Amino acid sequence: MSRFSYVNGRFVRHGIASVHIEDRGYQFADGVYEVIALAGGRFVDLDLHLTRLDRSLGELRIARPMSDRALTMVLSNLAKRNGIRDGSVYLQVTRGVAPRDFAFPVDAVPQVVATARRFKPVDPKALADGVKAITIPDLRWARCDIKSVALLPAAMGKQAAREAGAYEAWQYDRDGFVTEGTSSNAWIVTNEGELITRPPTNAILNGITRQVMIELAKDAGLRFVERAFTVDEAHAAREAFVTSSTSFVMPITQLDDATIGNGKPGSFSVRLRETYLARMAEIAGARA
Amino acid sequence: MSRFSYVNGRFVRHGIASVHIEDRGYQFADGVYEVIALAGGRFVDLDLHLTRLDRSLGELRIARPMSDRALTMVLSNLAKRNGIRDGSVYLQVTRGVAPRDFAFPVDAVPQVVATARRFKPVDPKALADGVKAITIPDLRWARCDIKSVALLPAAMGKQAAREAGAYEAWQYDRDGFVTEGTSSNAWIVTNEGELITRPPTNAILNGITRQVMIELAKDAGLRFVERAFTVDEAHAAREAFVTSSTSFVMPITQLDDATIGNGKPGSFSVRLRETYLARMAEIAGARA
Repeated sequence: MSRFSYVNGRFVRHGIASVHIEDRGYQFADGVYEVIALAGGRFVDLDLHLTRLDRSLGELRIARPMSDRALTMVLSNLAKRNGIRDGSVYLQVTRGVAPRDFAFPVDAVPQVVATARRFKPVDPKALADGVKAITIPDLRWARCDIKSVALLPAAMGKQAAREAGAYEAWQYDRDGFVTEGTSSNAWIVTNEGELITRPPTNAILNGITRQVMIELAKDAGLRFVERAFTVDEAHAAREAFVTSSTSFVMPITQLDDATIGNGKPGSFSVRLRETYLARMAEIAGARA
Repeated sequence: MSRFSYVNGRFVRHGIASVHIEDRGYQFADGVYEVIALAGGRFVDLDLHLTRLDRSLGELRIARPMSDRALTMVLSNLAKRNGIRDGSVYLQVTRGVAPRDFAFPVDAVPQVVATARRFKPVDPKALADGVKAITIPDLRWARCDIKSVALLPAAMGKQAAREAGAYEAWQYDRDGFVTEGTSSNAWIVTNEGELITRPPTNAILNGITRQVMIELAKDAGLRFVERAFTVDEAHAAREAFVTSSTSFVMPITQLDDATIGNGKPGSFSVRLRETYLARMAEIAGARA
């Protein structure tokens, strides 16, 4: 089966899917994106993703390319054409194509690109044992709340993690507080049993999975505190994990040289992952 | 005459010049660029630009796409095919095309794109009267020494300038020191007659025109001091100007609400611009 992608109104074979070299996404990182999971052919929290997309576009004053309804149809068709029921779609909107000039073009037409892919099978050993993360200085710009494609520092951070044999890199600000992973939000559980993640300021992306997880944690009666925590606190934590739209909940059992808790995924991580997977199964089953 | 651009080994009509949607330049701002001026059909400081390109690639560990000699031939051919003798070429190198993943792909082939354009005629009134600049907080990442395409904050800054009726925005760090313009380096002349620009650290791009101008200033016997200066110092300066490969020297006579000097381009700015233009004329005449 051929793979198809969506580019500005057309479904095209992925291999030839292209954008103009003066697309401002290519020359200025002047665009935003979303990654939305599919469970059993249904989107997971599509409304929250589209709301965040709107916010990102608004912050950058990029025109909305089409209605939520039209975008939803595009993404649904894309998933169907690729035969993907469990996976994710990637959606990118840039300001448009224009002769190169730093300031915004007056009459730019937003460009829309989308791709779809299956979930990679999750490594059962990673889930059973947890994964390693490292900590690195946060080099990013001051508006990480905008889900822009200016991801170079995140790419460099993820590469540093990979070279350290780690799954993710947690970035810390100049005061030593963890901001977030390069493509995930960061959580710890203290020895006092408090579940902690950083509040959504300009320093982090307010993950959709992060937002949902907070509700799931509250519903489960876990003690949740939204505050910044330091790298030192994380090293000494009882549990650590990351959340994202495609990894859901991934337990971290080693952070730099520190073993987290007893070196096995902790009860909060396991429980939240199970709760999140049950929610996805429910979404998948709602009208499969 | 058709306009041509260069994309990965081929000269193509500009209107259809395109890159794959999974080019990491598009999805991760994972690429670098240079803008090189042409005077009378000859490149201005091409060697310095290629050296800086190499440095940017090296910092990001992007493979060098071809030799300097081959790159030079590509850019020369591009200028010739477009009939451009006085203008600039834009060269972008990205890490390559690969399935979307934050970490660097193992076997990516660097992508090379180049465009050429004529110089826009300089507004004689801007040169005679000087231009306005505003100051804005520097929101950029911590590695502005790398000439990457992660230019979203610079684009936003330039747009803020345009909306304020200004030519450029000078960015200032959290200590109140000017870093640089969004696409230019920032200079002042104090009332004591000292020419000042910020040292090249990770906080600024070490402009080629900046480097050349320092030498020209020294040769002209101007008192040059390389140090950071504050926004307050700039407001109180006798002169202010910016340098870049395409604007050369542009005098700033209003910074925010402050009139700089007597509101007319100062003697240092005028002299350095003339000296720089003479140097370009010399390059142009060397073997036209």
